[in-house]
Amino acid sequence: MSATPESGENVHPVVPADSVAPEARGISRRGLLGLVGAGAAGLAAGGFAGAGAAVALGAAGTAASGGSGIHPFFGEHQAGITTPVQDHLHFAAFDLVDGAARDDLISLLQDWSYAASRMTQGLDVTASGAVGGSPEAPPDDTGEALGLPASSLTVTFGLGPDVFEKDGVDRFALGSQRPPALQPLPSFLGDDLDPLGTGGDLCVQACADDPQVAVHAIRNLSRIAFGRARIRWAQLGFGRTSRTDAAQATPRNLFGFKDGTANILASDGDGLRDHVWVGEEGPAWLAGGSYLVARRIRQTIESWDRLRLSEQERTIGRDKRVGATLSGGDEFTAPDFSATDDRGRARIDVRSHVRLAHPDSNGGVRLLRRGYNFVDGNDGRGSLEAGLFFLSYQRSPEQFVTVQRALSTDLLSEYLRHVGSGVWAVPPGARDGSFVGEALFA
Amino acid sequence: MSATPESGENVHPVVPADSVAPEARGISRRGLLGLVGAGAAGLAAGGFAGAGAAVALGAAGTAASGGSGIHPFFGEHQAGITTPVQDHLHFAAFDLVDGAARDDLISLLQDWSYAASRMTQGLDVTASGAVGGSPEAPPDDTGEALGLPASSLTVTFGLGPDVFEKDGVDRFALGSQRPPALQPLPSFLGDDLDPLGTGGDLCVQACADDPQVAVHAIRNLSRIAFGRARIRWAQLGFGRTSRTDAAQATPRNLFGFKDGTANILASDGDGLRDHVWVGEEGPAWLAGGSYLVARRIRQTIESWDRLRLSEQERTIGRDKRVGATLSGGDEFTAPDFSATDDRGRARIDVRSHVRLAHPDSNGGVRLLRRGYNFVDGNDGRGSLEAGLFFLSYQRSPEQFVTVQRALSTDLLSEYLRHVGSGVWAVPPGARDGSFVGEALFA
Repeated sequence: MSATPESGENVHPVVPADSVAPEARGISRRGLLGLVGAGAAGLAAGGFAGAGAAVALGAAGTAASGGSGIHPFFGEHQAGITTPVQDHLHFAAFDLVDGAARDDLISLLQDWSYAASRMTQGLDVTASGAVGGSPEAPPDDTGEALGLPASSLTVTFGLGPDVFEKDGVDRFALGSQRPPALQPLPSFLGDDLDPLGTGGDLCVQACADDPQVAVHAIRNLSRIAFGRARIRWAQLGFGRTSRTDAAQATPRNLFGFKDGTANILASDGDGLRDHVWVGEEGPAWLAGGSYLVARRIRQTIESWDRLRLSEQERTIGRDKRVGATLSGGDEFTAPDFSATDDRGRARIDVRSHVRLAHPDSNGGVRLLRRGYNFVDGNDGRGSLEAGLFFLSYQRSPEQFVTVQRALSTDLLSEYLRHVGSGVWAVPPGARDGSFVGEALFA
Repeated sequence: MSATPESGENVHPVVPADSVAPEARGISRRGLLGLVGAGAAGLAAGGFAGAGAAVALGAAGTAASGGSGIHPFFGEHQAGITTPVQDHLHFAAFDLVDGAARDDLISLLQDWSYAASRMTQGLDVTASGAVGGSPEAPPDDTGEALGLPASSLTVTFGLGPDVFEKDGVDRFALGSQRPPALQPLPSFLGDDLDPLGTGGDLCVQACADDPQVAVHAIRNLSRIAFGRARIRWAQLGFGRTSRTDAAQATPRNLFGFKDGTANILASDGDGLRDHVWVGEEGPAWLAGGSYLVARRIRQTIESWDRLRLSEQERTIGRDKRVGATLSGGDEFTAPDFSATDDRGRARIDVRSHVRLAHPDSNGGVRLLRRGYNFVDGNDGRGSLEAGLFFLSYQRSPEQFVTVQRALSTDLLSEYLRHVGSGVWAVPPGARDGSFVGEALFA
C-alpha cells in the first residue's frame, strides 16, 4: 500500500483516489472523521480536497481483477466468497461496545466499507494514509503494508444474530429486519466450544496472497472501530483448504488429504444461485447476500498420524495420493457409493467423511467452503495446536446444520474437536457510492 | 513434497533419493527405524533397497540453490542463517523427555538431520513417505506438503544450556563440552517472560516461502522426536522483518517502519566472520557455528498507533516513508549522530531506537537478525496479540546482551514487552553423510 505513486500494476497511485470526495460515495465525512481520533485533524487537513478526474475507485469493472491481484470491492456480491481462494486469512469477530447506538453501527459499516474499498485496491485506509497528513497527528494508516501491492485482498463483512436481538433487547431497532434463518447454531455432538472464541456481533474476513496485507486490513479496521466495536476473537489461517476456481490446484488439509475437490466453483452459476446466494425468500436487504458459518476445528493430528494409511483412506473415503474416492477413478471422478469390493463391502465406507458430507447423503445440500489450515503455537502438552478454520457460505445456515448433523457418525469425528463457532448474515455487495449493509437501514 | 516424480524444477524425483543408503550417510538405520513406531514396518519393506545412481542428496553444490527455491542442507554452516530470509517461519523449542539418554539425543539429531536433508530438497521425510510403504502401516510422512515444492525450506537446529547441565545434573555427559558463553540470558529491564514460552533443550527454526511447508517440517520433526523430545513452545511468523541479501527489499515491522536495513548480509564475509560465526575461541565442535537468541516481543500496537507521526519517527530515529535516519539521506545513508537541528537538538534523538541499537553505541557490536512479525489471535481485551518474534545470530550471546542492555533507555521500549526468550548454540553445518552436532559427541 502506498501513499506515493509507484510502478507496478498492482499499486494504484493515490492522486486519483484523493479526488473522490467521500460525499460522492455515500460515505459520511462525519463518520469518517470520527474514526481516527486525533488523526482526524491530519485527515481534515490533507484529505479529499483534490479536484479533477473522478475515478470510480474500486468500482466493479474499473479495477483490474483476477490474476492481477486486485479485486473490485463494489459489486453485486461481496468479494471474498467466489473470489479464487487466496493463500492467507485473517478473520476477526467483533462485538459492538455497550451503549453503541444504531448510528454507530451505520457509521462503522460506512467507515469500514470505505477503508476496505481503498485497501483492496492497494491504497492506504485514507488519502493521507500512513505518512501523509500532519506530522503532529497519528497517521491514519498503521503503515506495515506501505509499499506492498493489493495482494488480491478481499474484505467481507457479516452481521451476527445478536445485532438483531441480544438478551431480548432489539439494540439497534433492527428486529423487524431479522432474517428468520439467522439464529445461533444448534449444539452438535462433540461440540467443545470456547465461549470467548464463539459468536460476535460482526465478522470481517480478510483474505490475501500476502499475510501482512490481510493482517494490515484487520488491524486497521479494528482501529477504525475504536469506541464502537472491539475484537472478540480472531484467527489467522495460512493454507487454504479449498478452491473456488477450476484453475486452482486442490490443496491439502493437515490430515494430508486433498480437500475441497467438490466445492461450488465461481463458474457454477446454477450452484451459486441455488446454494449460496440468498434469493427472494428474504429479507429484501439480504437478497444477493449469503450466510457465513465459521467453525474452529482442532485436529488431533498426533492420533491421526498413528493411523495406518488404509484406515486414513477408509475414514476420509479417498485415496491419499491422488484424492480419488475409493470407488475409483481420479480426483474428479464422481463417487459411486454403490460400489462394493469382492467381499461385498462398500468401497466407500458408509461412515466415511466423503460419503456423509456428500450432497447425495444430504438431500442435495451443498456448501461453498473457504477454510484454512491453522497452527496456533502448541497446546501445552507437547503437541501443536493445529486444525482447520472451516468457513462456508450458504443460502441458509440450515444447509450447514444438515451436513454437520449427518457428520455425527463420521469416522473422522474421532480426530476433530469443534472449539469455536459463529454464524453471520453476509449482505450483498455495495454499489459504488454506498456501503455494505446499507439496505438494512433503509 | 512428493513421493512420485513430478514436473517442475523445485521437486526432486524420489527414485534417486531412494538409492542413497542411510548407512552411507552416517545416519543409523536403527535410529531411523526407531522413529516412526508402527511405520517402521512399511519403511523396512519399502525403503532404501534401491540400487543404481548414488545421488548425493542435498550435498552442497549438487542441489540448485538461491532463487530456485532449494537450499542445500549440508555445508560448512547450517542453512537458515545467511540464507535470504524466507517469508514464513515456524519455530519450535523442544525439551528432551525425562529419562532420555545420550544415545537418544544422538539418534534424534541423526534422524532430524536426515529428515531435514530430505524435506529441504522437496522430498518426504523418508523414501516411503506419505503414501508409499505398506497400507497397513502409518505413513512416515504426514502428507500435507505432498505435491508442494521445496519452497526454499531451511531447517536450523540449536542446543540450549540445559543440554549441558540442568539443575546441576550433566544429563548427557556433555558438561565438559559446554561453551562457556552458553548461559541462560540475564534478566533485562521490562522482561515479562512466560516460563512456558521460554527456553528449551533444543530448537528448530524452519523457514520457507510457503507456510504449509514450514509447518510440515516442524510437525514431522516433532513426530520423529516422539518418545525422545516434545515441543515446549512454538511460534509461527508471517512477515520477515529483516533481510540477509542485498537483493531483498527491506520489509516493515508492525510499527509500520522499515526494519533490518543495516543487517549483516550474506555477502559481508568480514562481518560474518567477526560477528556471526564462532571461531577459534571454541569449543572446537562449535567452530563455524553460531548462537541464536529468540525473543518473543509483544508490541502494544494500539498505544503506538495513537502516537503522532513525528513522535513515532523520533522514537525510531527514522523517517517512516523511506526509512532514512533523521540525519537525512536515503534508507542506506549512514546515520550522523552528531547532526543537530537549528535549535541545537540532536536530529537523531539520544534515546531513539536506531541510535541505541547502532554498533557505534555498542562498541562495534553487530547482530544478524532474522525476525518475523506475528499475530496470535487476540489478547482477550479487544486487541490483537501481535508483535515481533526476534531472532538474531551472533558469535556470542554477549553481543545480544550488550545491545539489549543499551536499549534499556530506548524510547521504543514503552511499546514493547518481552514475553518469551531463549538462547541456543547452533552447531556448524553437517558434511554430507553426517548430522548436525556430530562433533559434539566425538
